[in-house]
Amino acid sequence: MASVPSLVSLCLLVLSHACSAQLEQVTSQHGWTRVRGEQRRGEGYSLDECQFSRLSAREPDRRLTSEAGVTDVWDENDDQFRCAGAAALRHTIEERGLLLPAYTNAPKLVYVDQGQGYHGAAIPGCAETFQSQEESQQQQDPRQGFRDQHQKIRKVREGDVIALPAGVADWFYNDAQTPLVLVQIMDTSNPANQLDNNFRKFFLAGNPQQQIQGQRGQFSGQGFQSIFQGFDEQFLAEAFNVDTDLARRMKNENDNRGVIVRVEDRLQFLTPEFSEEERSEYQRGRPANGVEETFCSARLKQNINDPSRADVYNPRAGRITSVNSHNLPILRSLRLSAQKGHLYQNAIMAPHWNMNAHSICYFTRGTGRVQIVDENGRSVFDGEVREGQILTAPHNFAVVKRAGGEGLEWVAFKTNDQAKISQLAGRVSSMRAFPEEVIANSFQVSREEARRLKFNRDEVTLFSPGSRSQYRA
Amino acid sequence: MASVPSLVSLCLLVLSHACSAQLEQVTSQHGWTRVRGEQRRGEGYSLDECQFSRLSAREPDRRLTSEAGVTDVWDENDDQFRCAGAAALRHTIEERGLLLPAYTNAPKLVYVDQGQGYHGAAIPGCAETFQSQEESQQQQDPRQGFRDQHQKIRKVREGDVIALPAGVADWFYNDAQTPLVLVQIMDTSNPANQLDNNFRKFFLAGNPQQQIQGQRGQFSGQGFQSIFQGFDEQFLAEAFNVDTDLARRMKNENDNRGVIVRVEDRLQFLTPEFSEEERSEYQRGRPANGVEETFCSARLKQNINDPSRADVYNPRAGRITSVNSHNLPILRSLRLSAQKGHLYQNAIMAPHWNMNAHSICYFTRGTGRVQIVDENGRSVFDGEVREGQILTAPHNFAVVKRAGGEGLEWVAFKTNDQAKISQLAGRVSSMRAFPEEVIANSFQVSREEARRLKFNRDEVTLFSPGSRSQYRA
Amino acid sequence: MASVPSLVSLCLLVLSHACSAQLEQVTSQHGWTRVRGEQRRGEGYSLDECQFSRLSAREPDRRLTSEAGVTDVWDENDDQFRCAGAAALRHTIEERGLLLPAYTNAPKLVYVDQGQGYHGAAIPGCAETFQSQEESQQQQDPRQGFRDQHQKIRKVREGDVIALPAGVADWFYNDAQTPLVLVQIMDTSNPANQLDNNFRKFFLAGNPQQQIQGQRGQFSGQGFQSIFQGFDEQFLAEAFNVDTDLARRMKNENDNRGVIVRVEDRLQFLTPEFSEEERSEYQRGRPANGVEETFCSARLKQNINDPSRADVYNPRAGRITSVNSHNLPILRSLRLSAQKGHLYQNAIMAPHWNMNAHSICYFTRGTGRVQIVDENGRSVFDGEVREGQILTAPHNFAVVKRAGGEGLEWVAFKTNDQAKISQLAGRVSSMRAFPEEVIANSFQVSREEARRLKFNRDEVTLFSPGSRSQYRA
Repeated sequence: MASVPSLVSLCLLVLSHACSAQLEQVTSQHGWTRVRGEQRRGEGYSLDECQFSRLSAREPDRRLTSEAGVTDVWDENDDQFRCAGAAALRHTIEERGLLLPAYTNAPKLVYVDQGQGYHGAAIPGCAETFQSQEESQQQQDPRQGFRDQHQKIRKVREGDVIALPAGVADWFYNDAQTPLVLVQIMDTSNPANQLDNNFRKFFLAGNPQQQIQGQRGQFSGQGFQSIFQGFDEQFLAEAFNVDTDLARRMKNENDNRGVIVRVEDRLQFLTPEFSEEERSEYQRGRPANGVEETFCSARLKQNINDPSRADVYNPRAGRITSVNSHNLPILRSLRLSAQKGHLYQNAIMAPHWNMNAHSICYFTRGTGRVQIVDENGRSVFDGEVREGQILTAPHNFAVVKRAGGEGLEWVAFKTNDQAKISQLAGRVSSMRAFPEEVIANSFQVSREEARRLKFNRDEVTLFSPGSRSQYRA
Repeated sequence: MASVPSLVSLCLLVLSHACSAQLEQVTSQHGWTRVRGEQRRGEGYSLDECQFSRLSAREPDRRLTSEAGVTDVWDENDDQFRCAGAAALRHTIEERGLLLPAYTNAPKLVYVDQGQGYHGAAIPGCAETFQSQEESQQQQDPRQGFRDQHQKIRKVREGDVIALPAGVADWFYNDAQTPLVLVQIMDTSNPANQLDNNFRKFFLAGNPQQQIQGQRGQFSGQGFQSIFQGFDEQFLAEAFNVDTDLARRMKNENDNRGVIVRVEDRLQFLTPEFSEEERSEYQRGRPANGVEETFCSARLKQNINDPSRADVYNPRAGRITSVNSHNLPILRSLRLSAQKGHLYQNAIMAPHWNMNAHSICYFTRGTGRVQIVDENGRSVFDGEVREGQILTAPHNFAVVKRAGGEGLEWVAFKTNDQAKISQLAGRVSSMRAFPEEVIANSFQVSREEARRLKFNRDEVTLFSPGSRSQYRA
Repeated sequence: MASVPSLVSLCLLVLSHACSAQLEQVTSQHGWTRVRGEQRRGEGYSLDECQFSRLSAREPDRRLTSEAGVTDVWDENDDQFRCAGAAALRHTIEERGLLLPAYTNAPKLVYVDQGQGYHGAAIPGCAETFQSQEESQQQQDPRQGFRDQHQKIRKVREGDVIALPAGVADWFYNDAQTPLVLVQIMDTSNPANQLDNNFRKFFLAGNPQQQIQGQRGQFSGQGFQSIFQGFDEQFLAEAFNVDTDLARRMKNENDNRGVIVRVEDRLQFLTPEFSEEERSEYQRGRPANGVEETFCSARLKQNINDPSRADVYNPRAGRITSVNSHNLPILRSLRLSAQKGHLYQNAIMAPHWNMNAHSICYFTRGTGRVQIVDENGRSVFDGEVREGQILTAPHNFAVVKRAGGEGLEWVAFKTNDQAKISQLAGRVSSMRAFPEEVIANSFQVSREEARRLKFNRDEVTLFSPGSRSQYRA
């Protein structure tokens, strides 16, 4: 399947590619060109679907309990998910919990909110490049010369964003003693989903029994099962070249463990360790240069919790870290990105609008106040938000956030791999871009007042609660 | 229509960009490949939406009056706009009128039908590179050392097409004594719009009071307001670091000026002038080579009225000038293009179909007759058109136009940045591409008659009324 | 937010483009990145449209009889076509039959199931590079110095896949004594179709009389006609510069021949022959390098029946040959590909899912059994298939096929130009990608049984009926 690009074409790519590619690249630095242009959202619904007059900050609507964890599900039918064309889940995986292998009809972003563990993805055409530790021990046993091989496994930890294309099967395992909490969104309106906008999860094993599939407008109670349950036993036996009994057992028909199962003996993986030099480079946040990688070794994750990687930092207001197709190239094909925000107590995030994306915001810590305004100047959300809630700012709607007394943290999933905001106040704002006279005449204020609107806030993106005017009339 | 790629660009292509990139580039010269492939239209509606049996040439359905101008709106619910997935407006801005800053959920093309003025766009991430003239005067005043800075401002004039991505706020100002008339289409079904297909305009100032938002099926009377009206005053005051009184006044709650306001004192801008050499290059229509530009200085406009830039010219029939992603690269990300047509009296534009776009045609001058035919061979439009009307030729429908006694001029907005037509008659036509015998057998005519169909019209695109056969049996 | 591109990254961009471009190129080798990312399907329908609980293998629903052949039409309203967003037809063209020139609102793939003939496409902007043989003979006749010229004509034969963009007019002619059978799908949900999802065919000649246009939910009986029938005779006469009588005859109003007409005297084309060296290169399946081509000479076809071109070959199980944008670059813009499968008697195609495409499968020979399973583990198809039927495997649904006693052959049209499958069993499977312990715990089987599931089948894609375990406990 996976044809390796010839050396020649690779060479040519590296040497040339000039002209239009350069402009295109430069424009795409600004995030509102090529990529956005290829997305299409909000389709397939009745015409007034995004005409909601009210948004709500929501906690999950439904909990599914498994043997070794729980899965919290947000109702896809809620306006904010329906309009953004996405679905959201939160898995809490206990110690020795294994989230069963499955693939979905939509690309997804997973944020590791707590804990640590392992992630494995089965990418067709890539070699089995890892040998399990178990196998090494077995080699000591002369009766057992068998070598297990499997594809790359990735260690994941709090703050990681993991990106996965549609149709790729993956699993998670919690090897630590604290829960592994995964918040994830599936972009069902992504062009990669060629089915309808329902979220579909295809399990490769287990007998999950409960409906976590999307079916807008309902969460029906019908049991669902792994794809193997739909196949004829004889057919399976023949395809896998095993006896019928084993083929039958692949169906897990009497399995009541749910989607997160407990591993009997701790899973053992061979996990390569950093050399000292490597660790140091890693800790310096060295970005991938994209040349050393082949597709099979493409990075699928990036940590956005590490303060040293902040993209915006204001010691009096907070920090913001983004992962997008510039620093995690796989996101280009997924057309998704994410932003981690830390807003210190009482600080304000600049009023702004999302130019080319919806922003599906999961609050990871603290409390705050958010206002969202539509094109008619109506406030569609004005209220408190807190840890564990999701609130979506629709494409182009105006937003302002202020942290409460404990600060406010969030991860915002954005439906564009180079999501971009336009700010209304501060040093990088549309107010600064307009001539003073345009502001004065538009707002019917004096020239001097226009200057204040334009220049009084000199911070960027994150505003300290007590910041003072830079310009005094 | 089919512009042959210049030797230079072909050379560059061969030298660099190699393999697949080269073919892709060459194919995209022909406009019916990559770009079209990324568009998706006519979605989100009931299945028979484009099954209209009749089109009409329409004048605006509704007029909104402002302090310093009027806005004429075409009904988005009309079949031609609904099917093309676009909305259309015409602003007439009087002397010293300022069209308030706003952004929309869709990319737009603006054609300057009359007059001249200024256009400012606030592009996030770009520096404030202009200093207003006002500011220079102020520097004389020792009490007032303040320097106003703002982003680039563009002078616009009759015949300009201005292209703007979704989510970018912009404003227009008429500095002349004659009205500035802007005809614009917003491509609401563009992938850049992640909301539903309604046209949404977010005003950054003012209190427009009247509904010009799209709401297919109605033009509701509910007042609408700038986005600042949805924000809490205290919140605004804090974000802008101004007092609450000024924050309240940003909301313009008692403002009855509408969307086009009159500037008290003439706006003064510093506008750089051409050097002699520059003007000469500009007048020669030197195309952008795409290398000298960074995103912040990307051209957003191109004049398509200038006869010296015509792409097709027939002194007995008229001329056609196109602006597309080859000569205005920003259009690549907008996936839109435009064509200006001048048809002299009684001349004919070749019967043709739009291969990869809808063509939303605004008639700027004169009268004429148009026929449009659907896939069932039914005439869905056969009638007179005149100045001020819009008539859309849906994707693939067959079209023929003839100018009346005064000639006919139009600007056609096309939903593809490399829109392409296929002609039925003339020197560059499908009739010429087919073997004579295929024509004879298809139409059940003699070989000699087939030759007449194929060769009797030797002009390209624009046919003179009195042209005579090139081939005689 | 607005990150200014660093000097370093700009430098890199100008010098090379390396980085993301390289990764992008590499990822697109794997077919589940960029291209899929640009597709969008299943939109515009009610929300539960792909919730079918049952698929069926269908023969055509309707037959239209023409003078020199028949056209079999599958009902677009059937779930599998509606969900995949495509339409299917089969033309059987008799000796001297000419399929009338027409264009469609969707890109299409044509598979030549039987016979041979000629294909002509009228590509705007390309020169008339062929001179018909007829014309050469005529040159002998001093009374007749006329030279007919037309665009390139392509010889087609059994096993060819012909790719054609939307909006390009083409025709087929059968010059042999055996029927020319063309199976074709039109990708109506392709972004290139800017109209609604109905299949529309615009005939340039004839008077087909019968409705073969798509109108989901019906095949209405209303007659339809060539586009010339919608135009005014006088207008046509003027545009073509012919007399009104000939213009009227272009409308073929009394033509009852249907869409496939019989040519009076055998059509004569000048068809260039291979030199010996060329033929040898052709037979070696030399892939286009993309540099030697200009758009006008772009290959539109590729043979996928030739055993020497097989991509997967197992002498005990069969072979698979694909045509995709790697070996037929025009497919990149069409976002379609095709696969020819030959499964020997009782052999099995590995259980798999289509990662990034629907697979619309036309069975060309033999019989077999197919199972298709949805995300709920329900079998939505489990039955026999045979020559002449179409069965669609929806995006992501799990599929397994086994040939009957005569073997099974098919051509699968895929809605992605780099369609990719993920296999569940065999040497290149997700089972191999997972660690043995993950399999053991997921399926609740022993380590030894997990090894059997993982390693017992060592073949790739195509499994021999009698293959035996590679690993024995």
